[in-house]
Amino acid sequence: MAELHRYRSHTCGALRASDIGNTVRLSGWVHRVRDHGGVLFIDLRDHYGITQVVADPDSPAFKNAEAVRSEWVIRIDGTVRKRPDGTTNADLPTGEIELFATEIEVLSQAKELPVPVFGEPDYPEDLRLQYRFLDLRRETLHRNIMQRMAIIASLRKRMTEGGFFEFSTPILTASSPEGARDFLVPSRIHAGKFYALPQAPQQYKQLLMVSGFDRYFQIAPCFRDEDPRADRLPGEFYQLDVEMSFVTQDDVFNEMEPVITGVFEEFSAITGSEKSVTNGWPRIPYSEAIAKYGSDKPDLRNPIEMQDVTEHFRGSGFKIFAGMIDKDPKVRVWAIPAPGGGSRAFCDRMNSWAQGEGQPGLAYIFFREGEAAGPVGKNLGPERADAIREQMGLKEGDAVFFTAGNPARFHRFAGDARTRIGEELKLIDESKFALAWIVDFPFYEWNDDDKKIDFSHNPFSMPQGGLEALEGAASDDERLNIKAYQYDIVCNGFEIASGSIRNHRPDTMVKAFEITGLTQADVEARFGGLYRAFQYGAPPHGGMAAGIDRIVMLLVGAKNLREISLFPMNQQANDLLMGAPSDVAPKQLRELHIRVVAPEKQQS
Amino acid sequence: MAELHRYRSHTCGALRASDIGNTVRLSGWVHRVRDHGGVLFIDLRDHYGITQVVADPDSPAFKNAEAVRSEWVIRIDGTVRKRPDGTTNADLPTGEIELFATEIEVLSQAKELPVPVFGEPDYPEDLRLQYRFLDLRRETLHRNIMQRMAIIASLRKRMTEGGFFEFSTPILTASSPEGARDFLVPSRIHAGKFYALPQAPQQYKQLLMVSGFDRYFQIAPCFRDEDPRADRLPGEFYQLDVEMSFVTQDDVFNEMEPVITGVFEEFSAITGSEKSVTNGWPRIPYSEAIAKYGSDKPDLRNPIEMQDVTEHFRGSGFKIFAGMIDKDPKVRVWAIPAPGGGSRAFCDRMNSWAQGEGQPGLAYIFFREGEAAGPVGKNLGPERADAIREQMGLKEGDAVFFTAGNPARFHRFAGDARTRIGEELKLIDESKFALAWIVDFPFYEWNDDDKKIDFSHNPFSMPQGGLEALEGAASDDERLNIKAYQYDIVCNGFEIASGSIRNHRPDTMVKAFEITGLTQADVEARFGGLYRAFQYGAPPHGGMAAGIDRIVMLLVGAKNLREISLFPMNQQANDLLMGAPSDVAPKQLRELHIRVVAPEKQQS
Repeated sequence: MAELHRYRSHTCGALRASDIGNTVRLSGWVHRVRDHGGVLFIDLRDHYGITQVVADPDSPAFKNAEAVRSEWVIRIDGTVRKRPDGTTNADLPTGEIELFATEIEVLSQAKELPVPVFGEPDYPEDLRLQYRFLDLRRETLHRNIMQRMAIIASLRKRMTEGGFFEFSTPILTASSPEGARDFLVPSRIHAGKFYALPQAPQQYKQLLMVSGFDRYFQIAPCFRDEDPRADRLPGEFYQLDVEMSFVTQDDVFNEMEPVITGVFEEFSAITGSEKSVTNGWPRIPYSEAIAKYGSDKPDLRNPIEMQDVTEHFRGSGFKIFAGMIDKDPKVRVWAIPAPGGGSRAFCDRMNSWAQGEGQPGLAYIFFREGEAAGPVGKNLGPERADAIREQMGLKEGDAVFFTAGNPARFHRFAGDARTRIGEELKLIDESKFALAWIVDFPFYEWNDDDKKIDFSHNPFSMPQGGLEALEGAASDDERLNIKAYQYDIVCNGFEIASGSIRNHRPDTMVKAFEITGLTQADVEARFGGLYRAFQYGAPPHGGMAAGIDRIVMLLVGAKNLREISLFPMNQQANDLLMGAPSDVAPKQLRELHIRVVAPEKQQS
Repeated sequence: MAELHRYRSHTCGALRASDIGNTVRLSGWVHRVRDHGGVLFIDLRDHYGITQVVADPDSPAFKNAEAVRSEWVIRIDGTVRKRPDGTTNADLPTGEIELFATEIEVLSQAKELPVPVFGEPDYPEDLRLQYRFLDLRRETLHRNIMQRMAIIASLRKRMTEGGFFEFSTPILTASSPEGARDFLVPSRIHAGKFYALPQAPQQYKQLLMVSGFDRYFQIAPCFRDEDPRADRLPGEFYQLDVEMSFVTQDDVFNEMEPVITGVFEEFSAITGSEKSVTNGWPRIPYSEAIAKYGSDKPDLRNPIEMQDVTEHFRGSGFKIFAGMIDKDPKVRVWAIPAPGGGSRAFCDRMNSWAQGEGQPGLAYIFFREGEAAGPVGKNLGPERADAIREQMGLKEGDAVFFTAGNPARFHRFAGDARTRIGEELKLIDESKFALAWIVDFPFYEWNDDDKKIDFSHNPFSMPQGGLEALEGAASDDERLNIKAYQYDIVCNGFEIASGSIRNHRPDTMVKAFEITGLTQADVEARFGGLYRAFQYGAPPHGGMAAGIDRIVMLLVGAKNLREISLFPMNQQANDLLMGAPSDVAPKQLRELHIRVVAPEKQQS
């Protein structure tokens, strides 16, 4: 025995039938202890697996085996033996053998557990976060974290193989006036001044391109001080950040589509059943996505495609819609087909759902016994109803729902209705990762609060048509029609990445900001580093950023970000494990030249 | 030509003799323009290399070729042709060919450059930092950054191949009362409370081990709000952070020694001449390192080893040392050999240097013409001087220097003298990376300011002998003699990594802190997360952290951290490129419940 390692000769996942007869040493956590008629069975667990240990009353190890409790850390010496016939466990890689214990050493004890590790019971989230080190031992969470790391490693490998280099950009940087709220860091050396944590390395990656580095990527920590959202943890999140020089939009697509497809394919079977992954992603213009799916992040597993049926309602007997169409040329009627939804019960349920969403209701026709049933069908008359049925490719037993008005106002609701119908009718193909590019986003959007034009996404994007398009637009309507080389990747109804070809020309940048009401001096003040860089030879460049948390959630099938995150904060932005945020010493604040303003004394 | 890519068919480093005759398209920066008798030569540069372009007055590209200036970004179409005999450039991979330009498009212009890119001129550091995007185009810095990334990628690959997984630990965490000063982040949601940026992921990596993840590593960003130091940039730095469960000190050494050796060997020729790397690192106890080298980060390229020669001076005619030895049993005389230093001029120079260091002088003997020359030799007499010469293995033409007193007080100076002598006598072997483990660091040290015992390095280390050793020590002297499973890696006189086997037992942890004057309640308050975790089954574990910046500096031969960093701050902690730290809007401060205290009104 003298030559055995201090703690283990094997991991708890290593022993096989070929080891039978050998003397070995294992260390790990007591997963479970069972007493079978005086003989003790200990499931010993470590990161690599579980091994069944047997201690019988004749063994010198028995006394310690009786003492150990769940989650104690112990070392066990013993002999590997074949499990008795009928007791092998095919689910366990070590299931053919067991370890007959000859010696047990307690390495570390455990108090009574506030949250159990064995099994997957439902415990309050805050207790699990406070004892995250126990929660992380649980099988599902432990495996999710390992999968997360494997997914990131795969992204990194694919990017590296694509000739990209991984840069680390600064985490202490300048506060950026655009976008979300910054986390600030008071400067000790410069009284009254502040660093900020980056919301994304956007400016830095563009500066890298101007610095002549050709292909950048980073598994980048990003920080936004936002109010709690279901789809984002408080504090930090990670993105796969990418940038390339001397590229067009097609180049970015041709580089990144195989990377993302590859990762999805590699990890498509984590959840148990292998899913198919789109090969050759559709490129759907933004306006088409809105018109067909009511969303710029459509779930393409849902086969429902909406159509414009305005003309069938114009001057029809369905007076509400006909009247709206007459009054306002912007009014459109969109039809949402519901294959298999042709029953009054279903249509009424959808109508109630719409009312619950704050809508007056959801008009519908259902096709039953050769007629277009329901009030709309009656008012419209069989001929028009049939024309709609034909246009939508519907048949007996199907239904169709209608939304009418200005699509800019109702398209989001129409998209929600499409999703709802798809879910209710079980039309969504759960065996797919349906990926697509959404392209040709509008460069600007109308800010109704401030009655002015704003950037719709990224102010650093290149407008299609460049400076000429910006200068040529004679009205706000024309400016709002300008498209950008701006694109998203969507998967199963989620935006998983966003990017653009950048505006690398200072003259175009100034003009683009001017339209949103900012002067050249504003641009210099707000984006000084990047604006200055563009004066000294900037290459055409573009890239994207993919949300790693969202990709991991999709691949492991998690519903909650905390199920794929290592040490997350709770929704109140508390780190319950480490006790952050916390009070700090008055000396620390003095050194930073700041004072806390008590909320009750707060001035505004 | 229609089928050529919008910007380039090749990079500027790609074309070879085999491409001669082909029509190609390149894009890049104008590195240099030369006019040779009316024919223009443009060196076109991108990340991948430089290609020589020729435009003659007959070419339609000539007009634009005349217009372009340094660092403009241009696209060039042309025909690849062989360079005329005698003009090939063997230093350039593209040196056999040139591109005869048929069309030049200006993609982006450059204003007059505040710092040039061509050549490696010496410009003020702050100007270079403000225009970092130009500085980064310079050959040396550009290459250093690429090497830095390659070194990190190699570390990552070696760790992954060793079965380690790369975790990302939180960047917004709790303020830690030990160690250096934290950067603080005010919480918006919790008025008056603060997050802190991690000084290192120490507690998190130990929590990962308690969570059952077996082998952790991270290329970890670390943050310390320290005053400017030559060897650390303000703000953030990176370390290769490692932790393993169920290991002894030997296991850490056996895992990490090949990783570090491998990286040093892989990159040992960056500076031009290949350097040898220690294989089978010596493991030098701390006390031996101090006694032989006067330092716990000895430069082992320096062959000088000190020895204790106290007995030769006891009761001798060199009354100063003899008197000191008589008076205080702690007094020792250390000898620093100086092979080849046997001249009065050299010995006097060293003596002057010592005086410049605030010492009374540096006693010496030099061996010349068969005698022990100098005042010490005379007072000591030939017999004792010869005994010293014999003990030190010195010969005619060598010298030996002496320091006397309490070694705890003078060992640092003795180490500096050793280094100085080695440098002056050119004894340091510049062709080596001399690596070693320094082991058996003292667990505690005496804090002379507070007259109490403190941790000498890491309070989380395991004391050798465990709880028994802590409880068995009857006096402060005995406590100060306790060693820790604490180790450093040194290379060429720099500490490049530090680590320990951790104290995983809560009882031992409480006792260890008690000796430094902290109660169990203090430990719970300050290290709550980790202390709590240790109550619930902690595995024995240990690890280390290696300083990536220092390793990169050694490998690329850089003297200044800014020569291996992407977007560094200056020594005043200003990011001159992005303008951080900066003023922020009053609204931002109100939201964070803080107010700036003007320095003149500051209270203490």
